[in-house]
Amino acid sequence: MKQVYLDNQSNTRLDERVFEAMKPYFLDLYGNPQSLYSLGSTSKEALEKARQDVANLINAEPQEIIFTSCGTESNNLALKGVAAVVKGSAAVVKGAVNAINNASAASKGAPNHIVVSQIEHFSVLNPVKKLQKDGFEVSYIPVDKEGRVKIDEFKKALKPETILVSIQYANTEIGTIQDIKKLAEIAKSFNPKIIFHTDAVSACGFMPVDVKNLGIDLLTFSSSAMYGPKGAAALYLKKGIRIDRQMDGGVQENSKRAGTENLPAIVGFGKACEIAKAEMHQNVARIKELRDLLIAELPKRIEHIYLNGSVENRISNNVNFSIEFVEGESLFLFLDSKGIMAASGSACASKDLKLSHVLTAIGVDTAIAQGSILFTLSKFNTKDDINYVLEEFPPLVKKLRDISPLYSYFLKTGKRKEAGPGTDYDDDHHHDSDSEG
Amino acid sequence: MKQVYLDNQSNTRLDERVFEAMKPYFLDLYGNPQSLYSLGSTSKEALEKARQDVANLINAEPQEIIFTSCGTESNNLALKGVAAVVKGSAAVVKGAVNAINNASAASKGAPNHIVVSQIEHFSVLNPVKKLQKDGFEVSYIPVDKEGRVKIDEFKKALKPETILVSIQYANTEIGTIQDIKKLAEIAKSFNPKIIFHTDAVSACGFMPVDVKNLGIDLLTFSSSAMYGPKGAAALYLKKGIRIDRQMDGGVQENSKRAGTENLPAIVGFGKACEIAKAEMHQNVARIKELRDLLIAELPKRIEHIYLNGSVENRISNNVNFSIEFVEGESLFLFLDSKGIMAASGSACASKDLKLSHVLTAIGVDTAIAQGSILFTLSKFNTKDDINYVLEEFPPLVKKLRDISPLYSYFLKTGKRKEAGPGTDYDDDHHHDSDSEG
Repeated sequence: MKQVYLDNQSNTRLDERVFEAMKPYFLDLYGNPQSLYSLGSTSKEALEKARQDVANLINAEPQEIIFTSCGTESNNLALKGVAAVVKGSAAVVKGAVNAINNASAASKGAPNHIVVSQIEHFSVLNPVKKLQKDGFEVSYIPVDKEGRVKIDEFKKALKPETILVSIQYANTEIGTIQDIKKLAEIAKSFNPKIIFHTDAVSACGFMPVDVKNLGIDLLTFSSSAMYGPKGAAALYLKKGIRIDRQMDGGVQENSKRAGTENLPAIVGFGKACEIAKAEMHQNVARIKELRDLLIAELPKRIEHIYLNGSVENRISNNVNFSIEFVEGESLFLFLDSKGIMAASGSACASKDLKLSHVLTAIGVDTAIAQGSILFTLSKFNTKDDINYVLEEFPPLVKKLRDISPLYSYFLKTGKRKEAGPGTDYDDDHHHDSDSEG
Repeated sequence: MKQVYLDNQSNTRLDERVFEAMKPYFLDLYGNPQSLYSLGSTSKEALEKARQDVANLINAEPQEIIFTSCGTESNNLALKGVAAVVKGSAAVVKGAVNAINNASAASKGAPNHIVVSQIEHFSVLNPVKKLQKDGFEVSYIPVDKEGRVKIDEFKKALKPETILVSIQYANTEIGTIQDIKKLAEIAKSFNPKIIFHTDAVSACGFMPVDVKNLGIDLLTFSSSAMYGPKGAAALYLKKGIRIDRQMDGGVQENSKRAGTENLPAIVGFGKACEIAKAEMHQNVARIKELRDLLIAELPKRIEHIYLNGSVENRISNNVNFSIEFVEGESLFLFLDSKGIMAASGSACASKDLKLSHVLTAIGVDTAIAQGSILFTLSKFNTKDDINYVLEEFPPLVKKLRDISPLYSYFLKTGKRKEAGPGTDYDDDHHHDSDSEG
């Protein structure tokens, strides 16, 4: 049976050239980069070469790259690392203020406010939840129906106590690209001391990213999201920005992340970045064509199907549809039976996620959201793959609808049955792809 | 030139069978274990098979294994994870106590006391330092001249506020094995609620480890320390023991460690554990022979050389000598020039560590400690390797001593020159290997 892998936001297939680059570091070049003998120096050189290649992809300096084990770790380090520095400084300031008995200096309120969007990845949302418990205040900025951060709401949220903003560059689920440059400008012009972080795991490798041009301070990206191996990711930390390390131990990564460097993975990450820099342009053009074929053709072949996210501001490899009168999980399993691997919901929580927080945030009706399917493409996909999906997918939807009581009710009455409290909707609330351009 | 790798505490060479086991998970079986399609299920099965193999090595249940990215992360998770739960509960208790206005219930003192040894790895010492800043109290238990935790001091340190004990199983630098079973018994009989953690990174794979027999709650071990790949380690978490996860995000590892699983590395770790279980006994016997050859022969060929650590309670692959009248770094570089790769100081901090905290704790004189060299063997070492070291090493020491003013002063006067404040020592303070048995 044909196999079509369209779950690349969950994990990309490794590029064989990346694997070849990694290989010597498994069996032969196993020296610890911290060791000064020649085998260690070879490792150290490979580590720093990779750091340069990784930095190049986002136009950073190599000393601004901290290697971590995964995107989740980079996000945790960014958010908790900044918060810990601020908390430490606040304690010092408070102490000093108390010492000189000048209460008015502390009247402004503690610098403890964090701004994120409502549609961040769980590796941002869950760390900020923890920081909230720890006394930080968090504003969750709503997004419009395309998933773009509402600029007015963002401006309104900023205040003197704001220390940190974290907005995802391209959304993992619906692929919406934020105007990070503009958001960073707004934050910095409100207060240049606000630290701006972006989770760019879904963006890097699928669109050009330039940290200098964006004017940001911290950026997360991950090897396994761009044809590199698992086990390596990076946090870009702009020169001069302070974070408190979260992994305590040895002096690796300039004392910003302890633990023996995962050299084979880091070398692979470097190679993946080198390849991305050289080939991204042509790959992205081809992937976009395939993406647009799916986006254009599926609604012609399936009724009551709605594209989630934006048409214009959409990452090159993302296709996310809500399909009425079907259950997402059944659809997912039917697709699997045809060798088509897709996703429903966010990869990090696909198993326990009943309703995607992203689809909720863009206002997709509960009942419709449950019939959502996410295809994420890669450079390995071919036009054949897409044609296969276009052939196989519509009959599967039909098959599911044929046994759906909701659909049969709709066919009989022309009306949608209530699926539960608050889900009595009509066409006005539909998430209509036609109006999304 | 012959190459002899004797820095296995820093990193072990990968077993080729481990690499073969990992290979398919790089290029072909790249499905996310959290995904429900068949490629994901294949990954999930491999993940759970590895969890079983990893659990088997230490006689744990698979559901008691949390995969992390490295030993440092496991140690951080153990210490901060336990502390966070206690802190959370304390806050709740305090709230309840305040609510019923019963101050006497809180009179015992907050449960905030942690006990570690003075010779822990930095991935234990630095997290507890951070916890100290955060209000926890930490006792650092001294060790005897062999590096064994002083039992009386350990008993004295325990108090009603003690929540956590963390003692390294086998020391990374001097190889001293602690009587973990006895220490755990002491702690548990003082208060069964005390949580006992051991960092067993240097132990697992080089001696049998049985968590049930030891009666402990948490144990750290790492793939890359036992012929497995980097990028995978584990924290054993006894059923019923609660920790607060440190990596926040998705639901992986039963919500104890977020982040996409590094499947190739985890599969490799599983294979490494399987091999260790089957072959450790014979490998350890052979490694011990080689170790003992070095320990017996080097003092016959080099004067003024002192074994650090214990003879009896010593991990199978550790040889640590302090060599008088030489600089450790020069010795290290001379050895490298002969293709012999060793270590000076702790691997995690070899670069900035002027004086090993472990050698200081066992009372090695400052001047002598600076001439220390650490050989850590592996199953890949041969008798030829050891004979090569026995031939090449003594002339290197002689060469260094020939240009040492301290040594020439000693030869002339029979006295040792002061090397700096507090380093005026005589023979009584020497760390003499003969008295260590």
